[in-house]
Amino acid sequence: MAVTQTRDRLGLDQMAELGQQLRVDAVRCSAAAGSGHPTSAMSAADLMAVLLARYLRYDMTDPDDPHNDRLIFSKGHASPLLYAMLRAAGAIGTDELMTYRRLGSRLEGHPTPRLPWVDVATGSLGQGLPIGVGLALTGARLDRLPYRTWVLCGDSELAEGSMWEAFEQAGVSGLDHLTAIVDVNRLGQRGPTRHQWDLDAYARRMSAFGWRVIEVDGHDIADVDRGYAQAVSTAGKPAVILARTQKGRGVARVEDQEGKHGKPVPDPDDAVRQLGGVRDLSVHVREPDRAGTPHRFADGPLALPAYELGSKEATRTAYGRALVALGDARGDVVVLDGEVADSTRTEYFAGAHPDRFFECYIAEQQMLAAAVGMQARGWTPFAATFAAFWTRAFDFVRMAAVSRANLRLCGSHAGVSIGQDGPSQMGLEDLAAFRAVHGSTVLYPCDANQTADLVAAMADRDGISYLRTNRGATPVIYPPGERFPIGGSRTLRRSPDDLVAIIAAGVTVHQALAAADQLAANGVRARVIDAYCVKPIDADAVRAAARDTGRIVTVEDHWPEGGLGDAVLDALAGGDDPARVRKLAVRQMPASATPDEQLRAAGIDADAITAAARSLLDGVKAR
Amino acid sequence: MAVTQTRDRLGLDQMAELGQQLRVDAVRCSAAAGSGHPTSAMSAADLMAVLLARYLRYDMTDPDDPHNDRLIFSKGHASPLLYAMLRAAGAIGTDELMTYRRLGSRLEGHPTPRLPWVDVATGSLGQGLPIGVGLALTGARLDRLPYRTWVLCGDSELAEGSMWEAFEQAGVSGLDHLTAIVDVNRLGQRGPTRHQWDLDAYARRMSAFGWRVIEVDGHDIADVDRGYAQAVSTAGKPAVILARTQKGRGVARVEDQEGKHGKPVPDPDDAVRQLGGVRDLSVHVREPDRAGTPHRFADGPLALPAYELGSKEATRTAYGRALVALGDARGDVVVLDGEVADSTRTEYFAGAHPDRFFECYIAEQQMLAAAVGMQARGWTPFAATFAAFWTRAFDFVRMAAVSRANLRLCGSHAGVSIGQDGPSQMGLEDLAAFRAVHGSTVLYPCDANQTADLVAAMADRDGISYLRTNRGATPVIYPPGERFPIGGSRTLRRSPDDLVAIIAAGVTVHQALAAADQLAANGVRARVIDAYCVKPIDADAVRAAARDTGRIVTVEDHWPEGGLGDAVLDALAGGDDPARVRKLAVRQMPASATPDEQLRAAGIDADAITAAARSLLDGVKAR
Repeated sequence: MAVTQTRDRLGLDQMAELGQQLRVDAVRCSAAAGSGHPTSAMSAADLMAVLLARYLRYDMTDPDDPHNDRLIFSKGHASPLLYAMLRAAGAIGTDELMTYRRLGSRLEGHPTPRLPWVDVATGSLGQGLPIGVGLALTGARLDRLPYRTWVLCGDSELAEGSMWEAFEQAGVSGLDHLTAIVDVNRLGQRGPTRHQWDLDAYARRMSAFGWRVIEVDGHDIADVDRGYAQAVSTAGKPAVILARTQKGRGVARVEDQEGKHGKPVPDPDDAVRQLGGVRDLSVHVREPDRAGTPHRFADGPLALPAYELGSKEATRTAYGRALVALGDARGDVVVLDGEVADSTRTEYFAGAHPDRFFECYIAEQQMLAAAVGMQARGWTPFAATFAAFWTRAFDFVRMAAVSRANLRLCGSHAGVSIGQDGPSQMGLEDLAAFRAVHGSTVLYPCDANQTADLVAAMADRDGISYLRTNRGATPVIYPPGERFPIGGSRTLRRSPDDLVAIIAAGVTVHQALAAADQLAANGVRARVIDAYCVKPIDADAVRAAARDTGRIVTVEDHWPEGGLGDAVLDALAGGDDPARVRKLAVRQMPASATPDEQLRAAGIDADAITAAARSLLDGVKAR
Repeated sequence: MAVTQTRDRLGLDQMAELGQQLRVDAVRCSAAAGSGHPTSAMSAADLMAVLLARYLRYDMTDPDDPHNDRLIFSKGHASPLLYAMLRAAGAIGTDELMTYRRLGSRLEGHPTPRLPWVDVATGSLGQGLPIGVGLALTGARLDRLPYRTWVLCGDSELAEGSMWEAFEQAGVSGLDHLTAIVDVNRLGQRGPTRHQWDLDAYARRMSAFGWRVIEVDGHDIADVDRGYAQAVSTAGKPAVILARTQKGRGVARVEDQEGKHGKPVPDPDDAVRQLGGVRDLSVHVREPDRAGTPHRFADGPLALPAYELGSKEATRTAYGRALVALGDARGDVVVLDGEVADSTRTEYFAGAHPDRFFECYIAEQQMLAAAVGMQARGWTPFAATFAAFWTRAFDFVRMAAVSRANLRLCGSHAGVSIGQDGPSQMGLEDLAAFRAVHGSTVLYPCDANQTADLVAAMADRDGISYLRTNRGATPVIYPPGERFPIGGSRTLRRSPDDLVAIIAAGVTVHQALAAADQLAANGVRARVIDAYCVKPIDADAVRAAARDTGRIVTVEDHWPEGGLGDAVLDALAGGDDPARVRKLAVRQMPASATPDEQLRAAGIDADAITAAARSLLDGVKAR
């Protein structure tokens, strides 16, 4: 049965054979694993066979070739199909295929970039298409190369709003090098999808969002081929191939059956027989379109803005100005914003570098996904919105960590100190959320010069870094040009007689300094630490403070859970210097009030810090 | 100019006057506040004037009347308009209106349920319509009353995917008592919206999603009136009024101008003059439709399932079975699921109580929003998906806390212990995220009987409670019928000679017990605490363990940040019993492997706990 493919174009029959091979491989590798999603692979096997044989343009020996097409499995659970394709394309061998889902294998339950042919991790449905839109935007506006982005989607995931953010962004942007392939197999995990095989229901929606819609029979090779041909010849708009398919196609006991999701096919040997046996077809994937070289914007010298000591500036403004300087220096820096550029101050970058600014409107999930796509192609994206609204994209941030993505995110308007707008606009859980992202860096500057330096540092930082900025102006307390290494802190007040240490960040640093003055006026020396790097926290400085004073007050404009206070406690737990700790944080739901009233009401202003320090010092004689 | 309204129907001219009054009030209260969004109120003033005068049916003296229509400002920043409506309807006086955004005022920057006429908080765009869909579903399927739900939406927020989850849910559900009113004022915060005044672009999309679309001139009172008349006469589908409007309408210096978002109108006295001066029109809002009484499902006795000691059962299965029992007992309990009911086990409830089960498909934001709507009408919703996928709805959870909502959420498939599926499916940040929700309760049971008891407790718990369940079966270690109070813990091993305490929850409790056995075999007595309530943590038990042993190992199937370990450290920081603490948690990105391999690779299995305990005991002689 084995057919060996040459560099010739595969015929329809051969592509049908290839589809069967992909099914067989999905069945046998998931049977070996004892788990997995073969039936979700089998519905899309013919779609992927034709793509691999005729339309995908990719140098499998050089996944880093910038001219390669991009392929994303938005329905990441169909991973056995992807791995079967990699085997057919000669990228991996049968032995590796059969390691699917085993300890140490690169062939995980859902695809991750541990495989060099995979740009991003998928498996949380509704994310692959938004990221694909990001890649297509990158191709059109940044790389300026003719590569095509192909995204295999499930029908279930069309219920996710993020998919419609993607349809909207791509449709309006006219991304004609993007093709979505929707495997409409009618069955979700639990049972039938909302629209089952009503392809027209999907078609109406997608057409309305500006896409060309091509309906095909997903098991008719010629029809699928026609669909792809139409897709690649579509100009000015993205195309979607809506394919009517059967889940578990080709094996009677699972074909179009409910209750067969996410489990191996029963009696795999018989299933393989039904599918015509094991095959060893190999496909020579088409060469990439090597027209052009990746566009790059010019680099220049870095001249970060400088702020005078004693002047006042909002850290959000310093963020925006630093981005402009970074953009001047580095052509790889791009900026995205969620329709709040006047607040986050990315509007400065939009003005200075319009070709590298992406207005994502109020669609934080698509914004994050676009940034993931851009970094996958080597760009250095910074994305910003209100700290509160990053919660909207938290699943995308979580998955970006699985993707090993390098992202720089900024959340402005953090905490109660924004004032009158009230709790809906206050980021009070952002430190907790971003600390709980694998490999993340969490920064929270208190002045403009510090902000500028940290923004520059973020550009070189691997993983997901998050910068928290404040709305209101704060005094400039550091001279221009000072360096603030990631993982460090600054001790702003220190004496041999310190009885207590106050650890603060951002807006509360200034309250801590005022509290230290109040305490000093009463003969109590307090150490003040500016923990501008909340993760990784400067454990040495925290432990030294514990050792030297035995008493610590932490103060943060954040809920009590998961933020600065918890980071300090974690640092202490890792050492051997016990301390009594008072954690000041926002403990009641705020309402509207002025910034000063908010800090007072939350118990995180200078007076509250002084009182907390005094309570720790009860019975201690001031020196 | 003042006209006093009687119970007669307002004429067109009077409604135009009312629109001007609403504008004037928005201008003057935001001028007094020195901040706010008057221009976003002015665009929708005529729309709301006609609604208030002719279509809304609401007993302003009894906001708890179940027959009242519901009104949600999805564009929550237009709050001055809502407050002006409340003044016109006699619900609040001018004096209170002028407290807008002041410390202590109920009239916050964005609406919250501190005002009895407000069901839910808004201000994070894209949430009001999904919640409105929840209310409309509640009216149609639960309350079974003819009240109507009106949602005022902005045009900017149509970029949010959550809006399209709502359009989809409402369209498919045929919610003809739901009307969305979209104030298409062309200008977002930063500048023009994507589609500006291209109403047809929106109309195409909404029609495709199954809505009746009615386009109107939002400043032509007669046209607006016609629009509402068509909306209320629409059967079988929801209606949307797409209104072309001007931001800042009626005041030359701001009308249809960029850069006028979110700030008071300059020269407010002149603006009020341009708008015709202050008015004191009062509107007698139409009585609610009092046909019918709210439907209630029957209550019965509570008979929680019981599991035999020593048997094995997954906590997710125990959750599903407990829900059925709770549903038998309480007619107010309703269940929502995100198309994973076979995994979360809510499928049992779907089978037992199909009238109270809501399949939300893979649209976690809409699911959470629907639950918020249901609880606003007095129902007791439980919603479930994978722990990992709650990150998708985190902004909705955050806002639900601002709404003072009572929600019961379950996240299944927590942690690396799910095994082969890999990190995309593993909830490893859920404890951190849910701990950082104001007023939340976070539960993590380790056996089936404990799960059942906690599920019953959740039904009576105010605020947002979260239950974390595991995929795999765990041994039943508690007899049926035991009670597990919220805020408590269970000490499973304890002796006067304890040298170390192990604090665990969920799947790691069983690893902790095994570790205690290993340690005991070597003469080391270890206390084992089952911290099934992660928030509020049982601080007394934690501090007693510190006092008695001085050494604590925490172990959790979660990232190191923000979870059980941090909760324990926080409890210690609040006391005076220092302890050396080793925090075991997942520190590397997992891949695919068996559950046991995962626990071992993550360093949270029995051997790792034993090793951590030993490292704390270095130099201590075993007794």
